[in-house]
Amino acid sequence: MYKVKVYVTLRESVLDPQGSAVKSALHSMDYKEVQDVRIGKYMELTIEKSDRDLDTAVREMCEKLLANTVIEDFSYEVQEVVTK
Amino acid sequence: MYKVKVYVTLRESVLDPQGSAVKSALHSMDYKEVQDVRIGKYMELTIEKSDRDLDTAVREMCEKLLANTVIEDFSYEVQEVVTK
Repeated sequence: MYKVKVYVTLRESVLDPQGSAVKSALHSMDYKEVQDVRIGKYMELTIEKSDRDLDTAVREMCEKLLANTVIEDFSYEVQEVVTK
Repeated sequence: MYKVKVYVTLRESVLDPQGSAVKSALHSMDYKEVQDVRIGKYMELTIEKSDRDLDTAVREMCEKLLANTVIEDFSYEVQEVVTK
């Protein structure tokens, strides 16, 4: 069994109004040292072993469903879960 | 300057309807090996050096604004950015 951690972030060139709102909120709470906030998604998938190549499958899932590759980048980490 | 990566996840005991929807979508796309999906938030903060202790400040920001600690857990990583 694998645990896959997927990180989806807006591309550099894309405006992030949600991030700007959080930054303003932090400034109003007196955390003036915060220069920038970018908000993305974090997903944890639990995937069973299968015949399919895990790396290819995860990349396909990201490209087809989890990320909008026009405006978002994604990256992921795979951890094998050993159950006894 | 520091780059702080914040991960906010729903607590284990809290239902995640968004994750269930994504799991169903992946199953309908024939990725039946996906057993579970949990969705969280990923935030990147760029923070200037200040007199305040960074670790304390980030923990406070998470507790007060970025995470709802009743139903969410948070963790974070700090990277120092060296500009020349």
